[in-house]
Amino acid sequence: MNIINFDYISANPLLPEVKNAMITAIENDYGNPSSSHQLGEEAAAELEKAREKVARLINAPSPDEVIFTSGGTESNNHAIKGVAFAKRDKGKHIVTSDIEHNSVLKPIRALRALGYETTSIPVDHYGRVNPDDVRKAIREDTILISIMHANNEIGTIQPIKEIAQIARERKITFHCDAVASVGVLPVDVQELGVDLLSFSANQFNGPSGIGGLYIRKGTNIWPLLDGGAQERKRRGGTENLIGIIGMGVAAEITLKERESQFNHLKRIKEKIISGIKENIDDIIINGHPEYSLPNLVSVSIKYIEGESIVLMLDEENIEVSTKSACASGSLRASHVLIAIGRDYADAQGTLVITFGRQTTESEVDRFLEVLTKVVSTLRKMSPLYQKK
Amino acid sequence: MNIINFDYISANPLLPEVKNAMITAIENDYGNPSSSHQLGEEAAAELEKAREKVARLINAPSPDEVIFTSGGTESNNHAIKGVAFAKRDKGKHIVTSDIEHNSVLKPIRALRALGYETTSIPVDHYGRVNPDDVRKAIREDTILISIMHANNEIGTIQPIKEIAQIARERKITFHCDAVASVGVLPVDVQELGVDLLSFSANQFNGPSGIGGLYIRKGTNIWPLLDGGAQERKRRGGTENLIGIIGMGVAAEITLKERESQFNHLKRIKEKIISGIKENIDDIIINGHPEYSLPNLVSVSIKYIEGESIVLMLDEENIEVSTKSACASGSLRASHVLIAIGRDYADAQGTLVITFGRQTTESEVDRFLEVLTKVVSTLRKMSPLYQKK
Repeated sequence: MNIINFDYISANPLLPEVKNAMITAIENDYGNPSSSHQLGEEAAAELEKAREKVARLINAPSPDEVIFTSGGTESNNHAIKGVAFAKRDKGKHIVTSDIEHNSVLKPIRALRALGYETTSIPVDHYGRVNPDDVRKAIREDTILISIMHANNEIGTIQPIKEIAQIARERKITFHCDAVASVGVLPVDVQELGVDLLSFSANQFNGPSGIGGLYIRKGTNIWPLLDGGAQERKRRGGTENLIGIIGMGVAAEITLKERESQFNHLKRIKEKIISGIKENIDDIIINGHPEYSLPNLVSVSIKYIEGESIVLMLDEENIEVSTKSACASGSLRASHVLIAIGRDYADAQGTLVITFGRQTTESEVDRFLEVLTKVVSTLRKMSPLYQKK
Repeated sequence: MNIINFDYISANPLLPEVKNAMITAIENDYGNPSSSHQLGEEAAAELEKAREKVARLINAPSPDEVIFTSGGTESNNHAIKGVAFAKRDKGKHIVTSDIEHNSVLKPIRALRALGYETTSIPVDHYGRVNPDDVRKAIREDTILISIMHANNEIGTIQPIKEIAQIARERKITFHCDAVASVGVLPVDVQELGVDLLSFSANQFNGPSGIGGLYIRKGTNIWPLLDGGAQERKRRGGTENLIGIIGMGVAAEITLKERESQFNHLKRIKEKIISGIKENIDDIIINGHPEYSLPNLVSVSIKYIEGESIVLMLDEENIEVSTKSACASGSLRASHVLIAIGRDYADAQGTLVITFGRQTTESEVDRFLEVLTKVVSTLRKMSPLYQKK
């Protein structure tokens, strides 16, 4: 079965080099990096080698500032809860935006139940946060600002450097969820000026269930997983070394090929957008036309349901998504699309088309051909479309 | 290099079947179990198959009561913080014991900084908790009791069934850290009567960085990783499916062979203890003589340092440990050994010898021979031993 994958954001395919490295790690069956004997030393060396590769991908000043986590969700929970608890005596106010990922919104919601307060910044119709709105939201008791780098549903990139600068001026810890951008965009923690940055291996052709958190030296933060002395006492628990080794290799290759991949993705993105515009009427391309991820197209197709399109494409072995897989347990309209002004119906008729290094132009041709056919079929059955 | 491993507790070697299953999972490169298309369905099926196998290992009434975590540390943090926050309006008092693992003690310590209170139960000189002491420690505002099943440093098994019964009578949530016992002892969550039970794949020849938490239906608990709808909304984040598949296979084989393995381990344990007693004087075997793990021997060797023994054994390619790898970042004496009455010097002279299914009698012979020689060499240099 030859499946055409336009749902890369759910799970990037593993690179062959990543597969090989992980298989070798399984065969070698390294010990516990914390053991003080030979088996442990070998494991510890592999762990630190991977950490250096990952640190280079985000240009961390030192590998010591990178910890491995079980993925973007843990990184976001760690950053938000860790700072909230560590700085509780300084204040309990957190600033965030209306279009954050659930793994940012929900930890903040949990903290609200524990007495914390939040200001959520609205976005413009492209999904951009205005740094001035962040400045205005800051209070005397603000301890944390958490704004994502690039949105995983509409692709819009935020002015992180400007926001981080505002946070720094006011001595507020700044966390950036960069899960959707690390590996795709050049992400440089020093240039961005962030204190904390979350990322995930499965967004750059590494394995799922493994991620990282950049913690700038001197950041006041509690562990989320309290326990042993692993990760320099910032995250207890025996490491998922097989996943970490895979992440290291994925980071190394991603960094080396990022520029050429970026150009490849941009070409694919332009081809998809122009193809959709040519073939299908009554559509809206969501997100910012310029400040946007190159590997994502969000399109609202009026008068029909996104889930029906997904099912019909699936029958033709083409995989696409209506929203992030993380939200797939829920039938509610995407909070991101509502935040940029889509109405409920348009939000339900939205496809998130994501692609990657293995995507070919002929796959785009096939996708556009089938999508056009499917939309036409569904609209013929749509009373809303018929009477428009 | 042929290494003889008597430090199984740091990292159990992977079973060949586990390796094969994980390699197949990498090669197949399953998608995201949350995706609503073909790639996702296959992944979701693999996820649920593994969950059923793991549920059977602990005799959970339903696989729905098992969630996958990144290991024992996450499971313990989830259980303790999750109950503490969920039940905060009922009270803020937690009962635990003096010999819990750091991944229980440290979350509780973090909660103390947030206004929670703790009563820690002392243990007898075998390391056993007296259920009556638990009963007496309970207050009106007690919301959680957390007592481990078997201790990872001295092997002592606690009377969990009796303690769980006391908790149930008082309607207090009961959590049991069973990381050291699941896979070694028959652990039946229904018979034990626990609400929450933590366990880890690397303790039964599965991969590191993957574990489970049993959550009895109806237990009032918050997620630790807030985010997507994964794990029936109890743990956000894309799953480490490769690790989960490995854990499932390890659970299946462990369950099938538990009885024969138990007898094998007991034979090895008896051989080690009688060998040490015959060859080395001035030693103490720690832990309960009867209620104890079959795969662990803790021995305090007077007048010398455990770390020196570890180094000299390592030179002979024999791996052993002085304490749990999780605590290896610290030079302090083990809190467990102090709790059972060892003095500081004896605690520093303690070896934790752990073994498993691949351990052979000839490895034990070689280990005893080298250990005897090493102890004799070190004691010749020990002023304390010379003047005793």
